[in-house]
Amino acid sequence: MSTLGLIEYQDASTEVRAVYDDIMATRKSDWINNFWKAIAHDPALLKRTWQSVKEIMAPGALDPLTKELIYVAVSVTNSCHYCIASHTASAVKKGMTPAMFMELQAVVGMANETNKLVTGYQVEIDPQFGLPFAPRT
Amino acid sequence: MSTLGLIEYQDASTEVRAVYDDIMATRKSDWINNFWKAIAHDPALLKRTWQSVKEIMAPGALDPLTKELIYVAVSVTNSCHYCIASHTASAVKKGMTPAMFMELQAVVGMANETNKLVTGYQVEIDPQFGLPFAPRT
Amino acid sequence: MSTLGLIEYQDASTEVRAVYDDIMATRKSDWINNFWKAIAHDPALLKRTWQSVKEIMAPGALDPLTKELIYVAVSVTNSCHYCIASHTASAVKKGMTPAMFMELQAVVGMANETNKLVTGYQVEIDPQFGLPFAPRT
Amino acid sequence: MSTLGLIEYQDASTEVRAVYDDIMATRKSDWINNFWKAIAHDPALLKRTWQSVKEIMAPGALDPLTKELIYVAVSVTNSCHYCIASHTASAVKKGMTPAMFMELQAVVGMANETNKLVTGYQVEIDPQFGLPFAPRT
Amino acid sequence: MSTLGLIEYQDASTEVRAVYDDIMATRKSDWINNFWKAIAHDPALLKRTWQSVKEIMAPGALDPLTKELIYVAVSVTNSCHYCIASHTASAVKKGMTPAMFMELQAVVGMANETNKLVTGYQVEIDPQFGLPFAPRT
Amino acid sequence: MSTLGLIEYQDASTEVRAVYDDIMATRKSDWINNFWKAIAHDPALLKRTWQSVKEIMAPGALDPLTKELIYVAVSVTNSCHYCIASHTASAVKKGMTPAMFMELQAVVGMANETNKLVTGYQVEIDPQFGLPFAPRT
Repeated sequence: MSTLGLIEYQDASTEVRAVYDDIMATRKSDWINNFWKAIAHDPALLKRTWQSVKEIMAPGALDPLTKELIYVAVSVTNSCHYCIASHTASAVKKGMTPAMFMELQAVVGMANETNKLVTGYQVEIDPQFGLPFAPRT
Repeated sequence: MSTLGLIEYQDASTEVRAVYDDIMATRKSDWINNFWKAIAHDPALLKRTWQSVKEIMAPGALDPLTKELIYVAVSVTNSCHYCIASHTASAVKKGMTPAMFMELQAVVGMANETNKLVTGYQVEIDPQFGLPFAPRT
Repeated sequence: MSTLGLIEYQDASTEVRAVYDDIMATRKSDWINNFWKAIAHDPALLKRTWQSVKEIMAPGALDPLTKELIYVAVSVTNSCHYCIASHTASAVKKGMTPAMFMELQAVVGMANETNKLVTGYQVEIDPQFGLPFAPRT
Repeated sequence: MSTLGLIEYQDASTEVRAVYDDIMATRKSDWINNFWKAIAHDPALLKRTWQSVKEIMAPGALDPLTKELIYVAVSVTNSCHYCIASHTASAVKKGMTPAMFMELQAVVGMANETNKLVTGYQVEIDPQFGLPFAPRT
Repeated sequence: MSTLGLIEYQDASTEVRAVYDDIMATRKSDWINNFWKAIAHDPALLKRTWQSVKEIMAPGALDPLTKELIYVAVSVTNSCHYCIASHTASAVKKGMTPAMFMELQAVVGMANETNKLVTGYQVEIDPQFGLPFAPRT
Repeated sequence: MSTLGLIEYQDASTEVRAVYDDIMATRKSDWINNFWKAIAHDPALLKRTWQSVKEIMAPGALDPLTKELIYVAVSVTNSCHYCIASHTASAVKKGMTPAMFMELQAVVGMANETNKLVTGYQVEIDPQFGLPFAPRT
């Protein structure tokens, strides 16, 4: 019931199918979730978004599970229910245990609380925080 | 210039000093940042908040650096400038390299973008996402 | 299932009916959507809100379609599902094509991403941006 | 004073300079604003973000000024001060008059208000809103 | 340094001065804060906003101080620094003590934390909550 | 259908039951709402959160109803549907009348509007607002 409807594999153009194929191959999965089928009406957006997600979520200085945990943290803070469902599932697939899930939520909750205490008390930034990488790089 | 002013160590009650001492001991640091000095007007809040932060940020199923990265991700999503400054500094202290910082920001940016694409296209949750831990626990 | 229930036309006071009539006349529509029926319990709020919406969304320096696009952009950023549904429908009624819808969502997604990159990297405002209308007025 | 510092043109790698050159050529401008200089530490992010912005903000079904207005609306809703300053300046450059600026802000303010009234009154989506493009496509 | 500049009393039109006079008379104050001077470029917005604020913040089923506390709570949650400063000052003028300020912030912090725990754990609404006024009205 | 499922009283550990019992005793209620049953998988979080909520929401410088109104205001601003439903119900239990509900929503709506007008017009904080308690403490 997405605004423009969902484009299923069998109804997709060659260009869109190529992205769908790459998504399934990269994720070692045999289905495409609704997000991609919803934005496939805009093939440029589909390609650009998938390309960016693929690059950004690949192993690097941070491992893929840590990246998924960060994705969930943002999605919870934004109250994006779809994203919470999809990235919680992805995180589980990449190794998140129930214990890790619970610690993640505790940090997210705490961060949201202290973010607002800082703001409500109008606390000024300590000069000591400035340029944290400076002595190291 | 916080709303109620900052309570410095030398002006603090015994109760508040005990929290300050524990913060510095836990962090192996010799100073207290403004956040704690601002909320110290409410000793119950100070104690409860520090106790929660201490417990939640301790090593567990997730390591302390991962928890700091999550804290930064939430703070950026909430546009809490103080919290970004303080938790970026903490993350550096716990081992975040510039490369990790950059990957963190890329994930946060991407997550904020796709959160809104999902929402704007009114995408429905795939039934496949439900109860992600079910087959495992 | 709104908190106070919905006030239908036949059950409405004369004061509320007058607003409902003006909404339908202005919109060339024969029905009232739930938002107005929900807030009609507070006739002062109903009148004030409708009066403001009517004035603000009227043609001016910006045309009504552009205003609806802006309304949708805000609603997506706020994750207000009702508002996304209602203002997407209004925008279609005022001439938004699927192509315009897709470009709108792409801009909203991009803006949400760069908003957070700027914030996470703690970028300072360039002095060149200050008082953008200054040379013109 | 951005977290990693700003990379000036003279200190930039060939890869980064190529993006800076394209930004200035596309915008018919002779300077680079801080956002790009801050994220240039991550050349992949710099290139991908600039490429996306360039594509998305180009004339299409929506004209460039309308896109800037949408960008400002998102930035205000997110309280991104840097983005408000930079995109307000861009919008002025693309033709936004003070009258258009004022109507934009009025719509953004109104949308933020009604978004919350809908949410606070727990209003359910009218079935009439579903699939707004259905009769057309 | 507001986008369009500030309109001072001596430079204001009769229409704008009438609003300024009513603000000062209502608030028993001899100055106008920057918010009103910034939006005075749009006299319709100035008048409508002041009229709404005046009506909404007047004593009613809730007293003016409670309303200010609610205003501060929203402003903190939205990270609106200007609004936090102005409405904290207004609340103090209407009787908020430091003890009340501290309890307000504690509630705001807690609510922001539990809002996110609920969201992150994907908790469904209990049927018992539906239509809370039903048995009473 | 919460991520980890709900822990019912009969399936709960002694530790969790003790919290459930205290919730019901404190609230003079004979049931536990889903939020607590969802987070009970993390007994430390359950205990800490309940303890904090109990302390913070107790009568103090602000009465319990005022605190609930503030809780609702935050929850609406965050678009937390569960929290709006649960705290609206709590507020009714503590004495919120429909008239109070409507005034609360009007203030929340207005605050969200002016928060964004201030931000969009880039209004600077008046020096007069600084340290509002200064002359009093």
